[in-house]
Amino acid sequence: MASAAIFDPVHSDLDLVEEAIRRVSRVDYPLLESFLAHILGTRGKRVRPAIVLLSASFHRYCLEFLVPLAAAIELLHTATLVHDDLIDNASIRRGSPTLNSLTSQSATVLVGDYLFANAAALCTETQNVRVMQVFGRTLMAICDGELRQIFTAGQWRQSREDYYEKIERKTASLLRTAAETGAILSGAPEDQINALREYGYNLGMAFQIVDDVLDFMGDERALGKPVGSDLRQGVITLPTIRLLEEDPDHPAIRRIFDDADASDHAVAEAVSAVLRSSGVAFSLAEAHRFARLAVAALSSLPASPSRRALESLTDYVVERVS
Amino acid sequence: MASAAIFDPVHSDLDLVEEAIRRVSRVDYPLLESFLAHILGTRGKRVRPAIVLLSASFHRYCLEFLVPLAAAIELLHTATLVHDDLIDNASIRRGSPTLNSLTSQSATVLVGDYLFANAAALCTETQNVRVMQVFGRTLMAICDGELRQIFTAGQWRQSREDYYEKIERKTASLLRTAAETGAILSGAPEDQINALREYGYNLGMAFQIVDDVLDFMGDERALGKPVGSDLRQGVITLPTIRLLEEDPDHPAIRRIFDDADASDHAVAEAVSAVLRSSGVAFSLAEAHRFARLAVAALSSLPASPSRRALESLTDYVVERVS
Repeated sequence: MASAAIFDPVHSDLDLVEEAIRRVSRVDYPLLESFLAHILGTRGKRVRPAIVLLSASFHRYCLEFLVPLAAAIELLHTATLVHDDLIDNASIRRGSPTLNSLTSQSATVLVGDYLFANAAALCTETQNVRVMQVFGRTLMAICDGELRQIFTAGQWRQSREDYYEKIERKTASLLRTAAETGAILSGAPEDQINALREYGYNLGMAFQIVDDVLDFMGDERALGKPVGSDLRQGVITLPTIRLLEEDPDHPAIRRIFDDADASDHAVAEAVSAVLRSSGVAFSLAEAHRFARLAVAALSSLPASPSRRALESLTDYVVERVS
Repeated sequence: MASAAIFDPVHSDLDLVEEAIRRVSRVDYPLLESFLAHILGTRGKRVRPAIVLLSASFHRYCLEFLVPLAAAIELLHTATLVHDDLIDNASIRRGSPTLNSLTSQSATVLVGDYLFANAAALCTETQNVRVMQVFGRTLMAICDGELRQIFTAGQWRQSREDYYEKIERKTASLLRTAAETGAILSGAPEDQINALREYGYNLGMAFQIVDDVLDFMGDERALGKPVGSDLRQGVITLPTIRLLEEDPDHPAIRRIFDDADASDHAVAEAVSAVLRSSGVAFSLAEAHRFARLAVAALSSLPASPSRRALESLTDYVVERVS
């Protein structure tokens, strides 16, 4: 099932979120407006806003507060991508040119800040202190994850635990927050808030692991970026960690990290070594394990189209190819 | 009177704010910790936290909420400076090396984001929705002001109104918010909240105008940066706007902007032209006018050491030399 079909129960409300997001791009300066329209219009799958809405739909579903929250979470996500792409010097994202490839470093920093600011301001429209506190802590977790990544660069002998901690901060925290804050705003009881929070966390872990696998084996055109880009940037992910668990001194991997050789040839050799190892199968099995935990977390919720949508989303996440 | 003496009524509570700020620099990675300690320890005058505390002191003065708010506002200020210095490629701030001169662009972007995130998270500790909304809007105003500055760069035929609008967003908005949110948290009546908000705005306008004047005539050692740095970066401020009102085609100014000549000689000539014009005296008169408006805004508040401190702060702002 395509993600659009999964989101059927909240389809029309996602359009309202889309409008709220687009309003952010309406500014006085035509050049800035075109940049914002480009970033916000390179429409992702809007997975996070959909999770907010679906998670809220078990109880009081008040669009006045949910739409700003869903938009805030998507804008926060977009802001981190804008700064990430600058930091990684990436030129392509989802098949479109990144902002940093279109304009100056200065403008890119400020546009990211502007999106952070809009996210924070939209979040306050929920008028819910607890939601704002969760949101603030998530923003900190994401930044901390990013800092961890660059301040541990070169330390490639990382354990699976290090990796899980990193992707929890970098990715799972925001999906967890989407589900948790949607549930909080709906006035759900604490056990359901915890269930949805658990769902979001596990979905996020599965999502990032699959993302990291796709970096080795995805279709470059569908991904919109070259294969092996993590290794090229010296970032070690689960498939490589697994390979190193079995063969700690694998020469193709050592060449990338110990010799800092990020040539096309070295990266291709390392990618090929990972693909021949058990790293990919192991990682996908881990992704499936997290996806099952996500589904299990929902078991206490009443059967409904929304619950089925959240369940289907876990399949979509582990089966996607881009 | 030095700023430290002005802040006497809240002196010991400022120490608590200082501790809250320093806690932000305690992180796991020694290198990052040293960067944060450097930025947060290049101790500014902590004018904004002092305004928060002084503005709250007319009513219920609850440190549990005021200290995080005051720290949040200072961290937001610091975050904007970190990104500003990167954008301006500045190497010195308050006489100390800027973060971007000590580490990579990537780390600088992320450290700024991390400070924003900490500011947002600390602000939610106030548990006050209105305070968070004002804070969120201020964050947007500041970013909007920065974007305006870079997306109107080269458009140097700016009016006094353009300039006032720009410095309102860039500087006055945060001082206004410091006073307003301090008053809100204290449970002050609306007329007093408005009075303190008005005070903060006018103080901020005076503050930035003096800053812009000091860029022409300050002591380089005390300022910790070279004279004429605004013109060097193509930024037009009130003294130059005033000169151009009297002599719209002044050759030394046209040379900077029309010919984009930012050589030391061209900048020195332009600085000298501004100093010989009525621009400096006019600007200082404007700063004094805003300072008087700030004092007038306080007239409805009861006489107290805090009110006197806020009044003294206006004198300090217009009379300072660095």
